[in-house]
Amino acid sequence: MATDSPPLLLAVVSFLSVCQQGYFASAVGRSRKKHNVMPPAVNGPAEFERIFRAQQNCVEFYPLFLVLLWTAGSFFNQELAAIIGLCYMYARHMYFHGYAESAKGRLSGFYWNLVILFSLLVLGAAGITNQALDEYLDFDLLKKIRQLF
Amino acid sequence: MATDSPPLLLAVVSFLSVCQQGYFASAVGRSRKKHNVMPPAVNGPAEFERIFRAQQNCVEFYPLFLVLLWTAGSFFNQELAAIIGLCYMYARHMYFHGYAESAKGRLSGFYWNLVILFSLLVLGAAGITNQALDEYLDFDLLKKIRQLF
Amino acid sequence: MATDSPPLLLAVVSFLSVCQQGYFASAVGRSRKKHNVMPPAVNGPAEFERIFRAQQNCVEFYPLFLVLLWTAGSFFNQELAAIIGLCYMYARHMYFHGYAESAKGRLSGFYWNLVILFSLLVLGAAGITNQALDEYLDFDLLKKIRQLF
Repeated sequence: MATDSPPLLLAVVSFLSVCQQGYFASAVGRSRKKHNVMPPAVNGPAEFERIFRAQQNCVEFYPLFLVLLWTAGSFFNQELAAIIGLCYMYARHMYFHGYAESAKGRLSGFYWNLVILFSLLVLGAAGITNQALDEYLDFDLLKKIRQLF
Repeated sequence: MATDSPPLLLAVVSFLSVCQQGYFASAVGRSRKKHNVMPPAVNGPAEFERIFRAQQNCVEFYPLFLVLLWTAGSFFNQELAAIIGLCYMYARHMYFHGYAESAKGRLSGFYWNLVILFSLLVLGAAGITNQALDEYLDFDLLKKIRQLF
Repeated sequence: MATDSPPLLLAVVSFLSVCQQGYFASAVGRSRKKHNVMPPAVNGPAEFERIFRAQQNCVEFYPLFLVLLWTAGSFFNQELAAIIGLCYMYARHMYFHGYAESAKGRLSGFYWNLVILFSLLVLGAAGITNQALDEYLDFDLLKKIRQLF
């Protein structure tokens, strides 16, 4: 057991999101069997192509999600970032199953994903800026704001 | 040199796996030249399509592998996670070269990959659970188990 | 605010590169609208296919870039790794916009990307080797080299 292990809540959310990504990949596998689309083919019935593309989109955004989750969680607030991370997973769930139903069905989940990523982006930028002010100008803005209340 | 650098063995395995991913990408490039499949095309002779899809699958699973490697290594045991990580790289090697030969050839490497990822998942879940018990209930299960021997 | 947050400069470069990856993804979305290529389709006019493939290539290399950036930055030198990371982002910018113009236009950016990744790889290998010598043989090579000057 490492004595100074990484932030637990961020690790838990990352771990859960890996399980979700694995679930998406296995859904593609099941859809391959159902529609008899044998690798290396990636073209087939419309339903298979939607599920495949839904998973590809989740794969593309996954490293972005991880970096923003850890940036917001390490520099701003771990608990808040972890909760937003769980919301992201829920929006990905909506996106994936909506897309599997119809191309239009992906939209609401997708827009939620963007909103959630954007909120992590804002928290990350705030946290990084605060840390930079603190490190280079010795000025801890977040602490001053907290002292106001 | 940072004074508190990240766990060395996990960094070494991550570094080696980056080299392997780079090798897979360059194999796709060589296959493009051999079969005269010029970008942005991704369709061509069956051999090219198998190699391309083999690399795509490695790309899809790479962030999952990294998260599980670091979770298992940070919260359970670094040495064990690093060894399992090297096994994963070997199974990816089998998968990639098997897939390049034939679509069936990918299967044994692929199943090994899943087994190995699953074992990292179990170690990661055990390590995270233990850390959570320790942090929130002040109860270090792994330590108690070790004391039994 | 975590007391021992990750290296700030590496976090800043990672954060900026996430924004760039998001920009690439949105460029694909805009190109879908312009050329009326509705998801889940990924085939269409040549310009759309080039932009789509440019983004896919950036996605494929993104985890490799992150691992090498953090390895070089954690084990060799944070400032140097961060500067090289910004160069990588610039080369990705060249690559993406060059590829959007023509298939040949991707080449110069792509070769720069490889050169830059290779330099991060060399720094990472040097840093890891030095750390291993230090940890297992108690011999800090980089420190000795610095003492020569």
